[in-house]
Amino acid sequence: MIRKPYAQVPGVAIDKPGFQGMTARFALTGDDGMPHYALRVMEFAPGGHTSLHAHAEEHEFFFLEGEPAIVDGEGKETRLAPGDAVYTAPHEAHQIRNVGDTVMRMVCTIPILAGGDGKTTTQQSGGTY
Amino acid sequence: MIRKPYAQVPGVAIDKPGFQGMTARFALTGDDGMPHYALRVMEFAPGGHTSLHAHAEEHEFFFLEGEPAIVDGEGKETRLAPGDAVYTAPHEAHQIRNVGDTVMRMVCTIPILAGGDGKTTTQQSGGTY
Repeated sequence: MIRKPYAQVPGVAIDKPGFQGMTARFALTGDDGMPHYALRVMEFAPGGHTSLHAHAEEHEFFFLEGEPAIVDGEGKETRLAPGDAVYTAPHEAHQIRNVGDTVMRMVCTIPILAGGDGKTTTQQSGGTY
Repeated sequence: MIRKPYAQVPGVAIDKPGFQGMTARFALTGDDGMPHYALRVMEFAPGGHTSLHAHAEEHEFFFLEGEPAIVDGEGKETRLAPGDAVYTAPHEAHQIRNVGDTVMRMVCTIPILAGGDGKTTTQQSGGTY
Protein backbone atom coordinates (compact mmCIF):
# COMPACT_ATOMS: atom_id res chain seq x y z
CA MET A 1 0.00 0.00 0.00
CA ILE A 2 1.17 3.46 -0.85
CA ARG A 3 -0.45 6.49 0.75
CA LYS A 4 0.27 10.02 -0.36
CA PRO A 5 -1.67 12.99 0.95
CA TYR A 6 -1.81 14.97 -2.28
CA ALA A 7 -0.82 18.26 -0.66
CA GLN A 8 2.46 16.66 0.45
CA VAL A 9 3.35 15.71 -3.12
CA PRO A 10 5.60 18.48 -4.48
CA GLY A 11 3.88 20.76 -6.96
CA VAL A 12 5.58 21.08 -10.34
CA ALA A 13 4.82 24.20 -12.35
CA ILE A 14 4.01 23.26 -15.95
CA ASP A 15 5.55 25.81 -18.29
CA LYS A 16 5.00 24.10 -21.63
CA PRO A 17 3.87 26.42 -24.46
CA GLY A 18 0.24 27.37 -24.07
CA PHE A 19 0.05 26.32 -20.43
CA GLN A 20 -0.42 28.96 -17.74
CA GLY A 21 -0.90 28.88 -13.98
CA MET A 22 -0.97 25.09 -13.77
CA THR A 23 0.74 22.99 -11.12
CA ALA A 24 0.96 19.20 -11.25
CA ARG A 25 1.27 16.89 -8.27
CA PHE A 26 2.38 13.48 -9.56
CA ALA A 27 0.83 11.40 -6.79
CA LEU A 28 0.89 7.89 -8.29
CA THR A 29 2.95 7.34 -11.45
CA GLY A 30 5.41 4.97 -13.03
CA ASP A 31 7.96 6.19 -10.49
CA ASP A 32 5.80 4.55 -7.81
CA GLY A 33 5.45 1.34 -9.77
CA MET A 34 1.92 1.91 -11.05
CA PRO A 35 1.29 -0.96 -13.47
CA HIS A 36 -1.31 0.52 -15.81
CA TYR A 37 -2.18 4.18 -15.26
CA ALA A 38 -1.22 7.24 -13.28
CA LEU A 39 -3.13 9.50 -10.90
CA ARG A 40 -2.12 13.14 -10.68
CA VAL A 41 -3.72 16.16 -9.01
CA MET A 42 -3.65 19.31 -11.11
CA GLU A 43 -4.18 22.80 -9.73
CA PHE A 44 -4.99 25.88 -11.77
CA ALA A 45 -4.67 29.44 -10.53
CA PRO A 46 -7.45 31.85 -11.52
CA GLY A 47 -7.07 32.33 -15.27
CA GLY A 48 -4.89 29.22 -15.53
CA HIS A 49 -5.23 26.78 -18.38
CA THR A 50 -3.60 24.07 -20.44
CA SER A 51 -3.01 24.49 -24.13
CA LEU A 52 -5.54 23.13 -26.59
CA HIS A 53 -3.76 19.87 -27.21
CA ALA A 54 -4.15 16.18 -27.92
CA HIS A 55 -2.15 13.05 -27.21
CA ALA A 56 -2.32 9.31 -27.56
CA GLU A 57 -3.52 8.92 -23.97
CA GLU A 58 -7.11 9.26 -22.91
CA HIS A 59 -7.93 11.14 -19.71
CA GLU A 60 -10.35 10.35 -16.96
CA PHE A 61 -10.78 13.46 -14.85
CA PHE A 62 -12.57 13.98 -11.57
CA PHE A 63 -13.09 17.63 -10.67
CA LEU A 64 -12.62 18.52 -7.02
CA GLU A 65 -13.15 22.23 -6.54
CA GLY A 66 -13.36 25.58 -8.24
CA GLU A 67 -14.89 26.56 -11.58
CA PRO A 68 -13.50 24.40 -14.39
CA ALA A 69 -14.26 24.42 -18.08
CA ILE A 70 -13.19 22.25 -21.00
CA VAL A 71 -12.73 23.38 -24.60
CA ASP A 72 -12.98 21.03 -27.57
CA GLY A 73 -11.24 21.01 -30.95
CA GLU A 74 -13.81 23.39 -32.40
CA GLY A 75 -13.20 25.91 -29.62
CA LYS A 76 -16.49 25.17 -27.86
CA GLU A 77 -16.25 25.73 -24.11
CA THR A 78 -18.28 23.58 -21.70
CA ARG A 79 -18.55 24.67 -18.09
CA LEU A 80 -17.89 21.89 -15.60
CA ALA A 81 -18.35 21.57 -11.85
CA PRO A 82 -16.84 19.82 -8.86
CA GLY A 83 -18.04 16.23 -8.81
CA ASP A 84 -17.91 15.85 -12.59
CA ALA A 85 -16.27 12.74 -14.01
CA VAL A 86 -15.03 13.58 -17.51
CA TYR A 87 -13.48 11.46 -20.24
CA THR A 88 -11.47 12.65 -23.20
CA ALA A 89 -10.61 9.99 -25.77
CA PRO A 90 -7.18 9.22 -27.20
CA HIS A 91 -6.23 11.93 -29.73
CA GLU A 92 -9.21 14.10 -28.76
CA ALA A 93 -8.30 17.78 -28.55
CA HIS A 94 -9.00 19.39 -25.19
CA GLN A 95 -8.11 22.41 -23.14
CA ILE A 96 -8.78 22.70 -19.42
CA ARG A 97 -9.46 26.15 -18.03
CA ASN A 98 -10.04 27.68 -14.64
CA VAL A 99 -12.79 30.20 -15.31
CA GLY A 100 -13.30 31.13 -11.65
CA ASP A 101 -11.69 33.44 -9.12
CA THR A 102 -10.35 30.67 -6.87
CA VAL A 103 -8.02 27.73 -7.32
CA MET A 104 -9.45 24.97 -9.47
CA ARG A 105 -8.35 21.45 -8.63
CA MET A 106 -8.87 18.12 -10.36
CA VAL A 107 -7.75 14.52 -10.35
CA CYS A 108 -6.26 13.75 -13.77
CA THR A 109 -5.58 10.13 -14.70
CA ILE A 110 -3.81 8.80 -17.79
CA PRO A 111 -2.71 5.37 -18.95
CA ILE A 112 0.98 4.59 -18.81
CA LEU A 113 1.70 3.62 -22.40
CA ALA A 114 4.81 1.67 -23.44
CA GLY A 115 7.88 3.67 -22.54
CA GLY A 116 5.91 6.25 -20.59
CA ASP A 117 5.91 7.16 -16.91
CA GLY A 118 2.48 8.68 -16.39
CA LYS A 119 3.92 12.15 -15.91
CA THR A 120 4.09 13.28 -19.51
CA THR A 121 1.87 12.58 -22.48
CA THR A 122 2.61 11.60 -26.05
CA GLN A 123 2.09 14.86 -27.91
CA GLN A 124 0.65 14.71 -31.36
CA SER A 125 2.95 16.23 -33.93
CA GLY A 126 2.01 18.23 -36.97
CA GLY A 127 -1.04 19.92 -35.48
CA THR A 128 -1.71 23.27 -33.94
CA TYR A 129 -2.15 21.73 -30.50
CA MET B 1 -15.92 13.85 -24.44
CA ILE B 2 -18.14 12.27 -21.84
CA ARG B 3 -19.27 14.25 -18.81
CA LYS B 4 -21.07 12.68 -15.89
CA PRO B 5 -21.78 14.58 -12.69
CA TYR B 6 -21.18 11.74 -10.27
CA ALA B 7 -24.33 12.37 -8.26
CA GLN B 8 -26.40 11.77 -11.40
CA VAL B 9 -24.88 8.33 -11.88
CA PRO B 10 -27.28 5.82 -10.31
CA GLY B 11 -26.03 4.41 -7.03
CA VAL B 12 -25.83 0.62 -6.85
CA ALA B 13 -25.92 -0.95 -3.39
CA ILE B 14 -23.17 -3.54 -3.07
CA ASP B 15 -24.47 -6.53 -1.14
CA LYS B 16 -21.64 -8.97 -1.64
CA PRO B 17 -20.66 -11.00 1.44
CA GLY B 18 -18.72 -8.87 3.89
CA PHE B 19 -19.75 -5.59 2.34
CA GLN B 20 -22.01 -3.23 4.27
CA GLY B 21 -23.41 0.23 3.65
CA MET B 22 -21.54 0.72 0.39
CA THR B 23 -22.95 2.27 -2.77
CA ALA B 24 -21.11 2.32 -6.10
CA ARG B 25 -21.56 4.89 -8.83
CA PHE B 26 -20.04 3.47 -12.00
CA ALA B 27 -19.15 6.77 -13.64
CA LEU B 28 -16.70 5.72 -16.38
CA THR B 29 -16.42 2.01 -17.16
CA GLY B 30 -16.23 -0.43 -20.02
CA ASP B 31 -19.88 0.36 -20.71
CA ASP B 32 -18.77 3.88 -21.64
CA GLY B 33 -15.95 2.61 -23.83
CA MET B 34 -13.08 3.26 -21.42
CA PRO B 35 -10.04 1.72 -23.08
CA HIS B 36 -7.81 0.93 -20.10
CA TYR B 37 -9.31 1.58 -16.66
CA ALA B 38 -12.49 2.57 -14.90
CA LEU B 39 -13.39 5.41 -12.56
CA ARG B 40 -16.07 4.82 -9.95
CA VAL B 41 -17.26 6.85 -6.96
CA MET B 42 -17.91 4.77 -3.86
CA GLU B 43 -19.97 5.98 -0.90
CA PHE B 44 -20.00 4.42 2.55
CA ALA B 45 -22.63 5.07 5.19
CA PRO B 46 -21.38 5.46 8.77
CA GLY B 47 -20.12 2.02 9.77
CA GLY B 48 -19.98 0.91 6.14
CA HIS B 49 -17.15 -1.19 4.80
CA THR B 50 -15.98 -3.58 2.12
CA SER B 51 -14.88 -7.08 2.97
CA LEU B 52 -11.20 -7.79 3.50
CA HIS B 53 -10.54 -9.00 0.00
CA ALA B 54 -8.05 -9.15 -2.84
CA HIS B 55 -8.23 -9.35 -6.61
CA ALA B 56 -6.04 -9.27 -9.66
CA GLU B 57 -6.65 -5.57 -10.17
CA GLU B 58 -4.73 -2.85 -8.41
CA HIS B 59 -6.61 0.17 -7.07
CA GLU B 60 -5.75 3.82 -7.18
CA PHE B 61 -8.03 5.62 -4.75
CA PHE B 62 -8.54 9.31 -4.13
CA PHE B 63 -10.46 10.07 -0.95
CA LEU B 64 -12.97 12.90 -1.17
CA GLU B 65 -14.71 13.31 2.16
CA GLY B 66 -15.46 11.73 5.50
CA GLU B 67 -13.28 9.58 7.75
CA PRO B 68 -11.86 6.61 5.83
CA ALA B 69 -9.58 3.83 6.96
CA ILE B 70 -7.87 0.94 5.20
CA VAL B 71 -7.10 -2.46 6.68
CA ASP B 72 -4.32 -4.71 5.40
CA GLY B 73 -3.97 -8.48 5.28
CA GLU B 74 -2.66 -8.60 8.84
CA GLY B 75 -5.67 -6.71 10.15
CA LYS B 76 -3.77 -3.47 10.69
CA GLU B 77 -5.97 -0.40 10.27
CA THR B 78 -4.56 2.84 8.89
CA ARG B 79 -6.62 6.00 9.21
CA LEU B 80 -6.85 7.99 5.98
CA ALA B 81 -8.11 11.46 5.15
CA PRO B 82 -9.72 13.38 2.31
CA GLY B 83 -7.04 14.30 -0.19
CA ASP B 84 -5.17 11.02 0.19
CA ALA B 85 -4.09 9.19 -2.95
CA VAL B 86 -3.77 5.51 -2.08
CA TYR B 87 -2.52 2.52 -4.08
CA THR B 88 -3.19 -1.13 -3.38
CA ALA B 89 -1.24 -3.58 -5.54
CA PRO B 90 -2.65 -6.50 -7.52
CA HIS B 91 -3.53 -9.35 -5.14
CA GLU B 92 -2.93 -7.15 -2.05
CA ALA B 93 -5.57 -7.71 0.63
CA HIS B 94 -7.46 -4.57 1.62
CA GLN B 95 -10.60 -3.50 3.38
CA ILE B 96 -12.03 0.02 3.18
CA ARG B 97 -13.95 1.31 6.17
CA ASN B 98 -15.91 4.42 7.05
CA VAL B 99 -14.90 5.05 10.66
CA GLY B 100 -16.74 8.38 10.94
CA ASP B 101 -20.26 9.57 11.63
CA THR B 102 -20.87 11.00 8.16
CA VAL B 103 -20.84 9.65 4.63
CA MET B 104 -17.37 8.73 3.39
CA ARG B 105 -16.79 9.13 -0.32
CA MET B 106 -13.90 8.15 -2.57
CA VAL B 107 -12.88 7.87 -6.18
CA CYS B 108 -11.94 4.22 -6.84
CA THR B 109 -10.17 3.35 -10.08
CA ILE B 110 -9.30 -0.10 -11.43
CA PRO B 111 -7.79 -1.40 -14.64
CA ILE B 112 -10.13 -3.11 -17.06
CA LEU B 113 -8.48 -6.48 -17.51
CA ALA B 114 -9.23 -8.82 -20.42
CA GLY B 115 -12.88 -9.76 -20.34
CA GLY B 116 -13.67 -7.25 -17.60
CA ASP B 117 -15.88 -4.17 -17.60
CA GLY B 118 -14.42 -2.08 -14.78
CA LYS B 119 -17.47 -2.67 -12.59
CA THR B 120 -16.47 -5.91 -10.96
CA THR B 121 -13.11 -7.29 -9.90
CA THR B 122 -11.47 -10.65 -10.33
CA GLN B 123 -11.90 -12.24 -6.94
CA GLN B 124 -9.17 -14.48 -5.67
CA SER B 125 -10.40 -17.96 -4.91
CA GLY B 126 -9.34 -20.24 -2.12
CA GLY B 127 -8.72 -17.54 0.43
CA THR B 128 -10.67 -16.11 3.30
CA TYR B 129 -11.18 -12.81 1.51
